[in-house]
Amino acid sequence: MPVAYLPLPPERAHVIEGVQCHPVQAQIRKPDRFDFLVVRLAPGAVAGGVFTQSRFAAAPVEVCRLHLARSRAIRALVVNTGIANAATGELGLANARETCALVAQSFALDSHQVLPFSTGVILEHLPMDRIRHGVALARAAAECGQPVGWDLVARTIMTTDTVYKLASREVFVQGRPVRITGIAKGAGMIHPNMATMLGFVFTDATLTTRSVQMLAQQAAARSFNRITVDGDTSTNDSFVICATGRAGHTPLESFEEGEAAVFAEAVYEVSLELAQAIVRDGEGATKFITIRVVGGRDLHECDVIARAIAHSPLVKTAFFASDPNLGRILAAVGYGAPADLDPAGVTVHLGGVLVAEKGGRAASYSEEQGKRAMQAEDIEVRVALGRGTAEQVVYTCDFSYDYVRINADYRS
Amino acid sequence: MPVAYLPLPPERAHVIEGVQCHPVQAQIRKPDRFDFLVVRLAPGAVAGGVFTQSRFAAAPVEVCRLHLARSRAIRALVVNTGIANAATGELGLANARETCALVAQSFALDSHQVLPFSTGVILEHLPMDRIRHGVALARAAAECGQPVGWDLVARTIMTTDTVYKLASREVFVQGRPVRITGIAKGAGMIHPNMATMLGFVFTDATLTTRSVQMLAQQAAARSFNRITVDGDTSTNDSFVICATGRAGHTPLESFEEGEAAVFAEAVYEVSLELAQAIVRDGEGATKFITIRVVGGRDLHECDVIARAIAHSPLVKTAFFASDPNLGRILAAVGYGAPADLDPAGVTVHLGGVLVAEKGGRAASYSEEQGKRAMQAEDIEVRVALGRGTAEQVVYTCDFSYDYVRINADYRS
Repeated sequence: MPVAYLPLPPERAHVIEGVQCHPVQAQIRKPDRFDFLVVRLAPGAVAGGVFTQSRFAAAPVEVCRLHLARSRAIRALVVNTGIANAATGELGLANARETCALVAQSFALDSHQVLPFSTGVILEHLPMDRIRHGVALARAAAECGQPVGWDLVARTIMTTDTVYKLASREVFVQGRPVRITGIAKGAGMIHPNMATMLGFVFTDATLTTRSVQMLAQQAAARSFNRITVDGDTSTNDSFVICATGRAGHTPLESFEEGEAAVFAEAVYEVSLELAQAIVRDGEGATKFITIRVVGGRDLHECDVIARAIAHSPLVKTAFFASDPNLGRILAAVGYGAPADLDPAGVTVHLGGVLVAEKGGRAASYSEEQGKRAMQAEDIEVRVALGRGTAEQVVYTCDFSYDYVRINADYRS
Repeated sequence: MPVAYLPLPPERAHVIEGVQCHPVQAQIRKPDRFDFLVVRLAPGAVAGGVFTQSRFAAAPVEVCRLHLARSRAIRALVVNTGIANAATGELGLANARETCALVAQSFALDSHQVLPFSTGVILEHLPMDRIRHGVALARAAAECGQPVGWDLVARTIMTTDTVYKLASREVFVQGRPVRITGIAKGAGMIHPNMATMLGFVFTDATLTTRSVQMLAQQAAARSFNRITVDGDTSTNDSFVICATGRAGHTPLESFEEGEAAVFAEAVYEVSLELAQAIVRDGEGATKFITIRVVGGRDLHECDVIARAIAHSPLVKTAFFASDPNLGRILAAVGYGAPADLDPAGVTVHLGGVLVAEKGGRAASYSEEQGKRAMQAEDIEVRVALGRGTAEQVVYTCDFSYDYVRINADYRS
């Protein structure tokens, strides 16, 4: 059960002109589930993306990078679950390339206009016969031309997620409606060997090959790069924005001001909603925790402290126990902090309650207040460093018996 | 139950000339337990130490730093358990200073010749009446002059440890026996709020104020700085070497070669044995894991990768489950690795079994081998980067239900 999260009903997610989704059952690893998705983008579409920093990046990530480096005029995405095609060496790369070739052949595209994505078990090879079968099914679905609900699309990319993740917005640019709909999957780095986070945002906005990439980087920085379930970076993390240009306005070159900024803000909101949904559906999560560090000299020091708190197993187990264990939070601030931080200038709030100041417990604080604050499902920890104006936020969840149970279960 | 660790019988730990220990029951936080220790060092003794990097360092740590900066001619240590005197602001500092003054007064020393250490609950103040009582008891014990077993000394500094930690060695310098005996406490950052690692090594070697500090730094770098239970750095971590000079050899100025190097090696061994004992007694630990990264360009890259593996909750839960989950180890290597690491050049051994090479599973590897390797209580993960000669090692333990249980229990 995700923490305080109800998935968006599909009818409230905007259709995106120029985007056609074909989810099918290819039986990649398990029967009777949608596990293979081809998304077609109309001619003129552009895509930008950011990918895992892992040096063991999965084969599809390598192929995405190569294809996007060649041209951002992307015409299709292909996603499989079940097998991550990660740590699979040369054969893995060949299989990812062949998957693109199969899609290109079926839909009359060039292979490098296709971006491949995989998520599932690491160290196993893609079953290419089923991938071929999946592409054929997607081709048949495209010919039949039935519209597909966003919920099914979002469900098709799930692995151990307990709910589908879907978000949508509409803004206006030059008097025309511009729509944005995104889907994501992920629930921790993840279930035994499952790898991991995928996020896709589709829009009919008109962007350039340069601005779509800029937007993807900015949106990821404010959303997917701000969440952590267990601190593990996966081999397959991918976040891609696809813009079809069908809204018909003149191209947006940058997002600093005016309607372009409003549009970008809506993209950030969709991305953040998806990213937060991943945390809310985190493995074993019972609490959603926002860690906000303010008053720093720069973003970096705020980020390091926020992550020190977010990654501390001691802090996370205290949240699971609803224990207002200030010592653990202060200890995490202490080891994440820069060498010249003055502890006496730091204040800590827990869900609006001042808990620590001047290097110790706040005089006004009572354990009762702390306990009450810790009961909430949604909790904010606010650390003020008192030495500047920078601030940064990280979203995480608690650490429960179920996290250990899920991850100590033998791979299924 | 610690993992494969039997504490050294006290009669096998060498007496150190010039060191007198007075463990007493001061009832700092709980009745009927030894919780207060004064160690007296003979005139001429020198001490060096390393302390937590936390910016929320506890008051006694601050006082240790001040006193050592003034002079390393230290004559007494005073240790209390129960209360950490951390995150206690100005009053905490005053209490740590007063503790030193009380010891100095009772044993005719200067206050700055005394080093104070505290471990226990964070955010609470020392009960100064009981500290005063403890010092009086220690003074009485000193007058009575009964020798005390090292096991009782080691037990007195324990908090949530399940066994005492004691190690000892003898070497020869200039034909004279030189003895080294060390004690430590710690079992994870912590039981709820307990803070945390203390290590003391006593020797009758003759060192200088400069060389004792160098030795403390080198010994910590090879022992206490190489362990991690949960990645949390505590507010009170302290490691101190005290050398009384009673062995009677000429002072050792450095430790690069000859008998001095042999002596230093013995100090490293004592320190490492103590540090490893902390991991073996780690909260909820069922496995002791050595992570050795070799073939790196420099120490730093080996260290970062080793810690990425050691801190991964996914890797740690897989060890708990005895699941040879190669994907998780490779994923951790992947996100800890430098940007220019070639995955194809990396090999991974699990307990002597080659499990991964050329960016994927080793051709010779079978799941049966992996399962057998994971059954052991003591397991080595060996990652070879294949790009240099540097190597680094980190010791850790697994992550079990009991870790969550211990840390989610409300503070007792």
